[in-house]
Amino acid sequence: MKELEERIVSEGTVKAGNVLKVDAFLNHQCDVELFDRMGEEWARLFEGKRVDKVLTIEASGIGIACIAARHFGNAPVVFAKKYQSINLDGEQYVTSIHSFTKQKDFHVIVSKKFLSAGEHVLLIDDFLANGCALNGLIELCEEAGAVVEGIGIAVEKGFQGGGDSLRERGYDLQSLAIIESMDDETGEIRFRR
Amino acid sequence: MKELEERIVSEGTVKAGNVLKVDAFLNHQCDVELFDRMGEEWARLFEGKRVDKVLTIEASGIGIACIAARHFGNAPVVFAKKYQSINLDGEQYVTSIHSFTKQKDFHVIVSKKFLSAGEHVLLIDDFLANGCALNGLIELCEEAGAVVEGIGIAVEKGFQGGGDSLRERGYDLQSLAIIESMDDETGEIRFRR
Repeated sequence: MKELEERIVSEGTVKAGNVLKVDAFLNHQCDVELFDRMGEEWARLFEGKRVDKVLTIEASGIGIACIAARHFGNAPVVFAKKYQSINLDGEQYVTSIHSFTKQKDFHVIVSKKFLSAGEHVLLIDDFLANGCALNGLIELCEEAGAVVEGIGIAVEKGFQGGGDSLRERGYDLQSLAIIESMDDETGEIRFRR
Repeated sequence: MKELEERIVSEGTVKAGNVLKVDAFLNHQCDVELFDRMGEEWARLFEGKRVDKVLTIEASGIGIACIAARHFGNAPVVFAKKYQSINLDGEQYVTSIHSFTKQKDFHVIVSKKFLSAGEHVLLIDDFLANGCALNGLIELCEEAGAVVEGIGIAVEKGFQGGGDSLRERGYDLQSLAIIESMDDETGEIRFRR
């Protein structure tokens, strides 16, 4: 998506350690008009797919998922919650993920009330790097018996491999911008074509 | 807002310890059509006010704020982040809040880049009880020199007093449903008229 790539180039900054900051429009300050056009683009890319529910993970996926869901027949959005420790009462689907950004393990949970066998789910998130968070969401869907109909990502860091591994496993993954390489010394960002 | 009150009665559950669960449509599963009508209602209630920016706090405020912002000329949404510990590098406005729900203290931060002196800000959140989270957002605005133009809340637990104390301080607080009392034994919920 050309508009998103242009915003990444003009407002993003590359930091040491493979960090791309796009907090001016994506994940701290949110450009809701851009989110709406991202939703429109995913609706085009996933045309004809059945989407009963949109699943994302707190916190920065939520705004994007809510606005995108307006383009999928106002499908309900469920956001998985992250906890460092939890009391399991059997009413949640639970998995664990490792966050490389925060160097911590998290439990990721969704209430069993809001994810059901046979539901067709679109996963939405702001970033895809190693794929840990997304793999967590996929595991929650598997546990529920829900069908992962597609995965919509705003920014994929292609060079970290998480996206290609999901494509190899057969998922319909649509990233609106895929970064092939970036350089924190020159600030250069190259996109995959 | 009648529709919201009806949803609270039909889908909410009252739990011991003044807990109201509305996770079926507000803060775990999100009804984006309802969010849109809530945004419309706030736009009516705050008509004529200048809103340069919408400020909320992660996680459950984000979806509501993003959809509501579409009714305020697509104003950018900034969500404050919660951390238990932070490295202060001087680039953030920081305050601390106590969460009664989680029995923990949090730092609440907003990057200085995204909140500026003279900006007119609409605060949006899903819940208002004691007002700790909102007071944190107000302090961040004061630190930045931004003007709190109004406060839009989905569900106010009126009997916990946070809302009335903000009204006494002169804030234009518009809660779409105000719970006057609720009973976890009978499940009865009464709204303020």
